[in-house]
Amino acid sequence: MTSKSFHPPVRTLMGPGPSDVNPRILEAMSRPTIGHLDPAFVGLMDEMKGLLRYAFQTDHELTMPVSAPGSAGMETCFVNLVEPGDKVVVCQNGVFGGRMKENVERCGATAVMVEDEWGKAVDTNKVDEALRANPDAKVLAFVHAETSTGALSDAKTLAEIAHRHDCLVIADCVTSLGGSPIMTSEWGLDAVYSGTQKCLSCTPGLSPVTFSERAVEAIKQRSSTVQSWFMDLNLVLGYWGGGAKRAYHHTAPVNALYGLHEALVVLEEEGIENAWQRHTDNHMALRAGIEAMGLSFVVDEADRLPQLNAVSIPEGVDDAAVRGRLLNEYNLEIGAGLGPMAGKIWRIGLMGYASNRTNVLLCLGALDAVLSGMGAPIKSGVAVEAAMQAYA
Amino acid sequence: MTSKSFHPPVRTLMGPGPSDVNPRILEAMSRPTIGHLDPAFVGLMDEMKGLLRYAFQTDHELTMPVSAPGSAGMETCFVNLVEPGDKVVVCQNGVFGGRMKENVERCGATAVMVEDEWGKAVDTNKVDEALRANPDAKVLAFVHAETSTGALSDAKTLAEIAHRHDCLVIADCVTSLGGSPIMTSEWGLDAVYSGTQKCLSCTPGLSPVTFSERAVEAIKQRSSTVQSWFMDLNLVLGYWGGGAKRAYHHTAPVNALYGLHEALVVLEEEGIENAWQRHTDNHMALRAGIEAMGLSFVVDEADRLPQLNAVSIPEGVDDAAVRGRLLNEYNLEIGAGLGPMAGKIWRIGLMGYASNRTNVLLCLGALDAVLSGMGAPIKSGVAVEAAMQAYA
Repeated sequence: MTSKSFHPPVRTLMGPGPSDVNPRILEAMSRPTIGHLDPAFVGLMDEMKGLLRYAFQTDHELTMPVSAPGSAGMETCFVNLVEPGDKVVVCQNGVFGGRMKENVERCGATAVMVEDEWGKAVDTNKVDEALRANPDAKVLAFVHAETSTGALSDAKTLAEIAHRHDCLVIADCVTSLGGSPIMTSEWGLDAVYSGTQKCLSCTPGLSPVTFSERAVEAIKQRSSTVQSWFMDLNLVLGYWGGGAKRAYHHTAPVNALYGLHEALVVLEEEGIENAWQRHTDNHMALRAGIEAMGLSFVVDEADRLPQLNAVSIPEGVDDAAVRGRLLNEYNLEIGAGLGPMAGKIWRIGLMGYASNRTNVLLCLGALDAVLSGMGAPIKSGVAVEAAMQAYA
Repeated sequence: MTSKSFHPPVRTLMGPGPSDVNPRILEAMSRPTIGHLDPAFVGLMDEMKGLLRYAFQTDHELTMPVSAPGSAGMETCFVNLVEPGDKVVVCQNGVFGGRMKENVERCGATAVMVEDEWGKAVDTNKVDEALRANPDAKVLAFVHAETSTGALSDAKTLAEIAHRHDCLVIADCVTSLGGSPIMTSEWGLDAVYSGTQKCLSCTPGLSPVTFSERAVEAIKQRSSTVQSWFMDLNLVLGYWGGGAKRAYHHTAPVNALYGLHEALVVLEEEGIENAWQRHTDNHMALRAGIEAMGLSFVVDEADRLPQLNAVSIPEGVDDAAVRGRLLNEYNLEIGAGLGPMAGKIWRIGLMGYASNRTNVLLCLGALDAVLSGMGAPIKSGVAVEAAMQAYA
């Protein structure tokens, strides 16, 4: 007998996710497990679908959480909507567009890439050109909120363009759900996937998805079987599809779903517009402090995500050393850059429950202390005050 | 604002899973979330791999939990080991063999079925014949513990036969892990998947898997890309594969993994042989009570799973009415039959934390009261006493 119970350190999570989890949600997850076919659980599932529709701002009937992380939600969208031989226009302006390409190709389809510089929004003109050049494209796929760079793209315009070219729209809203407006129905997004561990303040492990009637029709009209048994919506819907009689598909992650339900109740209590505004307000305060220090943002002002702040690392500053000191001395996690941005940017999350004044001030004070302590070229002692003024 | 926090009823879970969750595990899951790349979390992952090796009785390096339910663990085994054009011999003696067939076919491979009656163990002679008749078969797949019927098959002999025919072995051990002996290395099981919500007493949502060196070699030698991005072990291993430098693949379900770790610590504290014995002891007591009532088991004595007791429903008894009364009046969940066994059997789980004397006595007392109250042809008033004598 050598192993002991694990007691994690208490961190402040201001990276790209998971973000700080609301204690109400942790408590909800620890409630007694019941069966996945228990009438009480079936009632919870129905209520959750309604709450997810509110979060996605849609009335799509097919709205539910996939029983696995956001990457599986992404794959659920692709394997159900894309068939071998299809053509998909994929926008890439960060890590997750590349992952979409992988998904398309593993479906036996062709990905036509529209590439933009990392840190920029997707260029809608280039997308229009790509769709003109590929009239046989069936799907346009893009990332609404690029977690790897902090750039927000214009989902509404992208969806308009796609529909003009008779394409379905798959949108990655992992980082935007609950933090920035997603008007799924108004914008005509046909398949949207997200995660629970970002602006919903829930633990990681589930992926909310929503599909339009048009998308459901496309799934029904498939000529080939969905390559994944676990993610085949034709089967999953026997369980999640509603009605008193639920067919067993897989055993639902009961307690994780308690947590997501509580997260959605919290969102409904706050009001989604208020949640969006809170994310903006805290971003503006963080921004005031970051800029007062003399640091700069990676993304153009118009395209910045309030919940994911990508900040350029000053010349000569040791990325890993800074993040290590923040973690070890302040119990504060901020995110590293990915791919070509590794070592060049920090990703400071202000997501969901973590988007609050205490976190903004803690982060600014800690960054100021660590950077000035390491002799970095910043203006010290002004960041916290600048943030407080922004709140005033 | 219309939704409220969900407070589940407190049930006793004696169905086919989820089973009662140890309160220690619920508490562990409610601990503060930390990042999936936090050094403290990476330490937890390493320890968990060791604990899973103990549970699987193996030293396989590639032993880890898939971040999704058991069905995704099954799919992880098939999509990584089976390529288009391969031939797989699949044993079916219940629901889950049929699911294996679905997985094989969705990989573009051919399933050669070896069918046995539901409720019987897999016939090893028929498997030997099938492998003789199909010398080009690459994999033998079978269910060790059929959750749909309560039958245990002889995994050791099946693996021996498979290896004689130069086949890899995929074994479904969802219901056996922690409840019945699985000697992964000794028996030569090449790919094993399980679930957390049965004899590990954890919440549902994760799927422990383990792969032999031979299986890992087969994955490395693949000529085609794994069709699932989320389940591609070549990618997943960048995160779970060990070493201080973990590459981001997907965001791990951090709190669910706290729960699984705690479940494995509990198993190590008890000792796995003691856990197996406890499952047998409680089964024997339940059996004494069931038989004293005049009810009978579906599975032959030699092949009965102690953790899943399939009991024939007496002629003329209304299945749904009995289960409904047990749930509503006793907060006791037992399982229904699936497929051809619907309405004909009950599945009484004694899994993990739920395998205890209190549950055995509660279940017998409740069944006795409900059945005799409905005028069912049972011998009333003797079951609890018979179980107590079995414990004596």
